[in-house]
Amino acid sequence: MEDVSKPQDLGRIGAWFVGARGSLATTAATGLHAMARGLVEPWGLTTVDDRFADVPFTPFADIVVGGHDISSTPLVERATALASGGMFPRELVQAVAADLERTDADIRPARVGGPTQQDDIDRAASDIADFRERYGLRLVVVVDVSSTEPLPADHPAFHSEDALRDALSAPGGTVLPASSIAAAAAIQAGAAYAGFTPSAGLTLPVLQARAAAAGIPFAGQDGKTGETLLRTVLAPMFTARGLKVLSWAGANLLGGGDGATLADPEAVRSKLASKNRGLHALVGDDVVAPLHIDNVPDLGDIKTAWDHVHAVGFLGSRITLQTTWSAYDSTLAAPLVLDLVRSLALATDAGQAGAVAELGCFFKDPWGSDVHAFAEQTAQFVSWVERTGVFASARRASERQPIAAR
Amino acid sequence: MEDVSKPQDLGRIGAWFVGARGSLATTAATGLHAMARGLVEPWGLTTVDDRFADVPFTPFADIVVGGHDISSTPLVERATALASGGMFPRELVQAVAADLERTDADIRPARVGGPTQQDDIDRAASDIADFRERYGLRLVVVVDVSSTEPLPADHPAFHSEDALRDALSAPGGTVLPASSIAAAAAIQAGAAYAGFTPSAGLTLPVLQARAAAAGIPFAGQDGKTGETLLRTVLAPMFTARGLKVLSWAGANLLGGGDGATLADPEAVRSKLASKNRGLHALVGDDVVAPLHIDNVPDLGDIKTAWDHVHAVGFLGSRITLQTTWSAYDSTLAAPLVLDLVRSLALATDAGQAGAVAELGCFFKDPWGSDVHAFAEQTAQFVSWVERTGVFASARRASERQPIAAR
Amino acid sequence: MEDVSKPQDLGRIGAWFVGARGSLATTAATGLHAMARGLVEPWGLTTVDDRFADVPFTPFADIVVGGHDISSTPLVERATALASGGMFPRELVQAVAADLERTDADIRPARVGGPTQQDDIDRAASDIADFRERYGLRLVVVVDVSSTEPLPADHPAFHSEDALRDALSAPGGTVLPASSIAAAAAIQAGAAYAGFTPSAGLTLPVLQARAAAAGIPFAGQDGKTGETLLRTVLAPMFTARGLKVLSWAGANLLGGGDGATLADPEAVRSKLASKNRGLHALVGDDVVAPLHIDNVPDLGDIKTAWDHVHAVGFLGSRITLQTTWSAYDSTLAAPLVLDLVRSLALATDAGQAGAVAELGCFFKDPWGSDVHAFAEQTAQFVSWVERTGVFASARRASERQPIAAR
Amino acid sequence: MEDVSKPQDLGRIGAWFVGARGSLATTAATGLHAMARGLVEPWGLTTVDDRFADVPFTPFADIVVGGHDISSTPLVERATALASGGMFPRELVQAVAADLERTDADIRPARVGGPTQQDDIDRAASDIADFRERYGLRLVVVVDVSSTEPLPADHPAFHSEDALRDALSAPGGTVLPASSIAAAAAIQAGAAYAGFTPSAGLTLPVLQARAAAAGIPFAGQDGKTGETLLRTVLAPMFTARGLKVLSWAGANLLGGGDGATLADPEAVRSKLASKNRGLHALVGDDVVAPLHIDNVPDLGDIKTAWDHVHAVGFLGSRITLQTTWSAYDSTLAAPLVLDLVRSLALATDAGQAGAVAELGCFFKDPWGSDVHAFAEQTAQFVSWVERTGVFASARRASERQPIAAR
Repeated sequence: MEDVSKPQDLGRIGAWFVGARGSLATTAATGLHAMARGLVEPWGLTTVDDRFADVPFTPFADIVVGGHDISSTPLVERATALASGGMFPRELVQAVAADLERTDADIRPARVGGPTQQDDIDRAASDIADFRERYGLRLVVVVDVSSTEPLPADHPAFHSEDALRDALSAPGGTVLPASSIAAAAAIQAGAAYAGFTPSAGLTLPVLQARAAAAGIPFAGQDGKTGETLLRTVLAPMFTARGLKVLSWAGANLLGGGDGATLADPEAVRSKLASKNRGLHALVGDDVVAPLHIDNVPDLGDIKTAWDHVHAVGFLGSRITLQTTWSAYDSTLAAPLVLDLVRSLALATDAGQAGAVAELGCFFKDPWGSDVHAFAEQTAQFVSWVERTGVFASARRASERQPIAAR
Repeated sequence: MEDVSKPQDLGRIGAWFVGARGSLATTAATGLHAMARGLVEPWGLTTVDDRFADVPFTPFADIVVGGHDISSTPLVERATALASGGMFPRELVQAVAADLERTDADIRPARVGGPTQQDDIDRAASDIADFRERYGLRLVVVVDVSSTEPLPADHPAFHSEDALRDALSAPGGTVLPASSIAAAAAIQAGAAYAGFTPSAGLTLPVLQARAAAAGIPFAGQDGKTGETLLRTVLAPMFTARGLKVLSWAGANLLGGGDGATLADPEAVRSKLASKNRGLHALVGDDVVAPLHIDNVPDLGDIKTAWDHVHAVGFLGSRITLQTTWSAYDSTLAAPLVLDLVRSLALATDAGQAGAVAELGCFFKDPWGSDVHAFAEQTAQFVSWVERTGVFASARRASERQPIAAR
Repeated sequence: MEDVSKPQDLGRIGAWFVGARGSLATTAATGLHAMARGLVEPWGLTTVDDRFADVPFTPFADIVVGGHDISSTPLVERATALASGGMFPRELVQAVAADLERTDADIRPARVGGPTQQDDIDRAASDIADFRERYGLRLVVVVDVSSTEPLPADHPAFHSEDALRDALSAPGGTVLPASSIAAAAAIQAGAAYAGFTPSAGLTLPVLQARAAAAGIPFAGQDGKTGETLLRTVLAPMFTARGLKVLSWAGANLLGGGDGATLADPEAVRSKLASKNRGLHALVGDDVVAPLHIDNVPDLGDIKTAWDHVHAVGFLGSRITLQTTWSAYDSTLAAPLVLDLVRSLALATDAGQAGAVAELGCFFKDPWGSDVHAFAEQTAQFVSWVERTGVFASARRASERQPIAAR
Repeated sequence: MEDVSKPQDLGRIGAWFVGARGSLATTAATGLHAMARGLVEPWGLTTVDDRFADVPFTPFADIVVGGHDISSTPLVERATALASGGMFPRELVQAVAADLERTDADIRPARVGGPTQQDDIDRAASDIADFRERYGLRLVVVVDVSSTEPLPADHPAFHSEDALRDALSAPGGTVLPASSIAAAAAIQAGAAYAGFTPSAGLTLPVLQARAAAAGIPFAGQDGKTGETLLRTVLAPMFTARGLKVLSWAGANLLGGGDGATLADPEAVRSKLASKNRGLHALVGDDVVAPLHIDNVPDLGDIKTAWDHVHAVGFLGSRITLQTTWSAYDSTLAAPLVLDLVRSLALATDAGQAGAVAELGCFFKDPWGSDVHAFAEQTAQFVSWVERTGVFASARRASERQPIAAR
């Protein structure tokens, strides 16, 4: 197999993962290296499609991975553990071990707790800038794939640039949660940004304003991988057929690191809110929608979700639908992370800034859009890619011309 | 509750059901009368939607029901039996009993076996014409909702008007199956036609040519109600996400009349072929797709379908999805039959003829279209309704003007 | 159909339901009357079986129903509402309406809040005694089928007869929860007792001592109807085959009155504890067993339970089992309530006193037994019935003999 | 980990597998070697249990494996392929590779087509005898784990020793199917025999007579592993609770070698008959029980079975239960094969001959027993092991005594 992404030489880009040694980032890096080497088919990717043949998406071989993490476990060790759980073959890890070791060298410790939070931001931003320069990358996309945080209580500094600046320079300050420190660093480094978790990150209004002012494109929030994807596919079926959904109950079982994180009731609260938002938007606020996430360590990285839908149809007759979805969450999410890197690079190439609403198909809680129906989101994405691809190609073409010819 | 369909006076239309005393037609008639009286919400209907507020769909109260059937069991008796099985409340049957009895009087015996098959067609067509005149209907829509027939072996008369004419006038001839006799009668009576079963009906090329020549609109084939609806909603999710579907197995359990019909291996063959066609179109011909329909009389009219999907995702990881759908098949199908009556009336009003491909969302095997993805079909339908509604309104407006004003 | 229970004349007995107007008691009364009239098959009953042909179980026609309730809604009204939800045919309610109205007259208001709690007990006990005398009943069985209470905090009066006596005679005292007042009244009235809920009832040590001293037989606790029944059937399969169960997750959806009660987190706590106890006993304390009960009002009285079991087999290979159970909880429970009435009557006839451990098959949390495996419980029950039947028959025979012959 | 089976020195025994290179035999051999080396826990085994601590079951380390197969693929290669499908870790295969290679040397080609079928039997029997002598085994147990054959048409030679002898000596004769040749060879070699498939094997009356005359113990038929095990656990629950089962539908999906074999309609027929027999015995012959087995190659060795049960309870109310069972069929079956080897060795030690009905818990279609309820079968097995263990111990003790002491 060859690298299926197009080989035209656009120059390399960087993918900077916040949480670069977690299951998701490890899977994404492993898969990226494997695809770049032509070892695996690009299953699970949305940006690889015959209809995108003329779109200047960055080839996998031209994406360099770096990131931040508090852990120092080598990626090969993490990937080997994931392979043991059956997620992918161990041979694959061996085949890309050298690539993963090189990536290891580009992962910097995620340190917070400097004299001020502005110092933390400065250091993180300079890690990103160094990475860009080290490899001569034409752009970097930061993706937050770190563990879900509890949501912070509201604060005046979330709404005012002045208040934020003061708070960040206060010695020992803690106004921003770690995910928002990372987002602020991305903005400061001029990198595009994707929020793949439900954490605060770039959601704070003051940071969205900063991002807009900095002219970077960004997209979020909370990757739409398994159960929520399924729900936003099924719910429009009921409404299109005039069937009234009365209740939609869900039970999620998962182990692995994600299971442990979500066993924390605070962390799970932001996740649950995010999961149910699309459902309410699609079938109405009066739907009864109990939802549970349970940490079941023995299930490992396989996530199993059971949904039970009760709807009423013609003449009040009863309709029930049950779904059981079972998959490795990290292998559902990882290709989307790579799709986001390639899409936000495309947006940057085309000169877009602000929330890219047309990337809503990747998220549970899409920024800049109230469309949740997956088929509609997909149509918007496809049309955006085609449109943006033309712009990006034109812009690059003009940039490449010798100055005299412009 | 009031009749939710619009009360503007367009004149009455006829809904002529082939198989008018079956479970499906009985449910449709019961529901139509109940909605006309404002007794129930129009759940399950696609043509009742706020966005269609300006579309001149015929109000339920202006639809008169008639039809053919070989049975003579009164509709109230059939409806009461269905109510006993829990499909709808018995009180509802009582509330529309007088309406059902009136409909009884407009159901003619479905007799075949006249001297020639042309005689059978003539008699059926004249039943339809009489019905139209008796009520001063501005148009009639014929819907085939009879039991699934075995598919006939191919025959030269299916492909040549001359050969057909000869075969139909041969004494004691049996070239056309009953469903095609009914379709020929609809054409001869100038009625729009919908094929809601997988039977031969209007699929014979020679009849499609006749229908086109007669200038009637028609649509088919085989109503997309439960499991197949679900499949054409889910399959595009997998492809949009780049997930490769390897197998899609299905088990269907049902009792009732449909269960008994489909216990016949010949009848079930046409059903199974029709059910799997969309799946192959959506996820590829190499998908392994065993499919069974079992007659389980104790389950009555509730149909239960289990599907098991196996797909492969990023780095070859395993994804499985199981769905269990449980619903009364007749209450899923009946509103679609009414939607088709209203939609083909609209098409007639707008002067359309031939296969109406944009009604594909109602069918397992859409005539004139190779789109199976339900969301895409729905978008096509919505756009068609809006467009056709404007035409139909304009045409009626011009017809209503006094001649001098034209 | 005739009454399937044996017609030999043993004299009538009383079934006194605490919570006599709830869904469960209403279903039990409706069914009892219907079986006594031979209108329905005795499906769901354990005490009707060919192998018990010689056991002197009281015929249904000889069981008189009375009870306590705080509600005053007539039984016919309650039963009609249950029939509307599809639990049983409305015709059945009409056929036994006169019987239900007679039962209505034997249901007394469940009043607490007398001057002292001893007064409450006295009044409840005298209601039971009056009932016995009014009908000349040879014995009465009290069954607590009222709503689940929150569990009370421990109290010295739960452990000492003296402390209890003092607390009960304290003006305005509230030491006993309502379910234990009812249990104390049963003991005082000399009635056998079954605790069909997880409420405190007769579980207080001081009340168990009173019951033993009073020489009455009793059994409990918390009826084993749906999901828990299934679990105690399946869990022994895994252990018998040497398969190690790692996790057993459960999701329960229900509406109706039970759903509303269990939406109270305090009430649900005692229920959940009771539900998981058997599982831990059967597969070990280290099993991961998250369990949820959600109130989903639109589902009405149908309870749907999904379980997901993960076990490890030979060479560490993965085994998963999912079950979805869907049934009307009240029709699962009601026949067990009638079985308990007949079984405790048999125990009384045979002169047994104290906890009847062999009735464990009816309970989630069997008193006097640590056997939870359903097949084993069933074998114990069958053997107990046969043994006890012989004793009961012998005792009655000797009682009937003229004194001179003894 | 140590070998959990008891180390007392009884002398070695042989396990001779018919189909010794198939998935099942490969899994059994791999697991046996791994347990003998103390590398894995004995999960999935029935004969390893604290209550059997005093029973003289042969330790795993004392079981030598040999067999017949038409294939010559080395066991390590087969085991590695199974490990790739996720059935067990590849490291395990490496750890026992030397043991598997030794076993390879004891697998003889399964050749049929000698001058007469008696020649085929003679050769196969002499392979078994050689194996016994080569290792000084005190006994050999033959287990048929080969692919399911189509059932042969009845023949007079199946019922008469004389007719059989004639037919076997006829040049070029084909009266016996391969599985019965293997059974006849076991009898001739004086080996105990277990029929783990639904093939004819030892079911022919003439062979059962030979086996009885030869004084060997035998057991069968068709291993009860997944769906059927579950059914014989669940069905008794319904009957114990007086619930009437109306239908029990099943869908089985499997790939691997078994899937391919059962794609043959002839082979599947014997399987389906065997699978439904227990169900009919447990819930009655009038149950509607459609059952399908589909070959779905992409699922590999994981078998997924969906069952849908419809029962009627108190007052005719509807109960449904769905189960989805998913497991590697070979790892469910392999420990049972080892249990059978150990159990038939115990029976031999205790001097038993003929069909051992108490081994019914291992089979879909138990010889010598009409008990199908799994809990009851388990109780019979446990009691038989304890009883037989005492006999076997006593017999060995007397054999070991010096002659003078007898």
